[in-house]
Amino acid sequence: MNLFDALNWRYATKRMNGEQVPEEKVDRILDAIRLSASSMGLQPYTILTVSNEDLRKELQPAAYNQPQIVEGSHLIIFAAWDDISEEQIDEYMHNIADVRGVSLDSLKDFRTSLINTVQSRTPDARYEWAARQVYIALGTALTAAAVERVDATPMEGFIPEKVDEILNLREKGLRSVAMMALGYRDEENDFLANAKKVRREKKKLILQLN
Amino acid sequence: MNLFDALNWRYATKRMNGEQVPEEKVDRILDAIRLSASSMGLQPYTILTVSNEDLRKELQPAAYNQPQIVEGSHLIIFAAWDDISEEQIDEYMHNIADVRGVSLDSLKDFRTSLINTVQSRTPDARYEWAARQVYIALGTALTAAAVERVDATPMEGFIPEKVDEILNLREKGLRSVAMMALGYRDEENDFLANAKKVRREKKKLILQLN
Repeated sequence: MNLFDALNWRYATKRMNGEQVPEEKVDRILDAIRLSASSMGLQPYTILTVSNEDLRKELQPAAYNQPQIVEGSHLIIFAAWDDISEEQIDEYMHNIADVRGVSLDSLKDFRTSLINTVQSRTPDARYEWAARQVYIALGTALTAAAVERVDATPMEGFIPEKVDEILNLREKGLRSVAMMALGYRDEENDFLANAKKVRREKKKLILQLN
Repeated sequence: MNLFDALNWRYATKRMNGEQVPEEKVDRILDAIRLSASSMGLQPYTILTVSNEDLRKELQPAAYNQPQIVEGSHLIIFAAWDDISEEQIDEYMHNIADVRGVSLDSLKDFRTSLINTVQSRTPDARYEWAARQVYIALGTALTAAAVERVDATPMEGFIPEKVDEILNLREKGLRSVAMMALGYRDEENDFLANAKKVRREKKKLILQLN
């Protein structure tokens, strides 16, 4: 596969045809999300997947009735941690110690630096920092979907409070930041399906400073 | 190429060996950035590339002297638009009209909806929105670098005001948000080069809501 071809093929699909995305493709997209980079490796977010059609129908009005939510087969919700606790940081330290077979003591400096990074920010800034990490995962997920030739619609156009309420996210310490519908483009009804891709000219977008 | 293998191979490289990344690889990574998704397709950012070593040395103290900035061969700076003007939106409309061969009049509704989206936000929220889009591009760029088997370090750890000053970004209506060093890992001196990748367990990171 060629990454350039995959990225050229993808677009923010507006209408989908109801066809089911095979679970093994969804899994590979979720694996890519799991491997996404994040600041200090913390992954301060949780990913929710919804394939149940009734639940997607319930969520649809919260996203201004965008059709892809039900015309796709899976809806992925990216939720940032509402706040970052010392407990969560310690869970991360235990995970590093387990996976790498090192002592917690050897991670002391890293733990301190992560705690300082987190505590130097206001709660709002911490949430915004977590939300930005979500967007790295979203970029990775869109790329992975394109490689799988699965259509995907990244969505910011929804009312986070409503989505959080329907899915009880605040109780879980989470806030919805972005969503991604997965499915297959409806070539006949999606006016964008055959539209040329528009991007800023390379010479305007990218400046070489030498 | 297998995306999963590429993402598993990559890590936030802490030390690089000074080897030069070929320009054609850098170009393909920049092409991937250009093809990144962004809200409403606006791409509210500009990408700056620095290969000049003197300039990278000048930038290094602003990034707490992280060695990759000079040990890599290229530094990519992701700068969000400081604000979003009607002029910039109109430039985008002209670009769509040119690329797709449609009239500006046919884009009237889209233009209105984009302007409403932008103007409904405070200047701070507009900047934060632009910054989030940068992170999609960063996620795409890290993936593209991994596919090219080029090492990359995503960096938030720098003083944006200093980077902006050195590169005169504010005069260009830009603010630095993230950076990415490109190069090749120094297997001997990078303690992370052979460390196992740590990620949150799949069952904790991903919740299936069915």
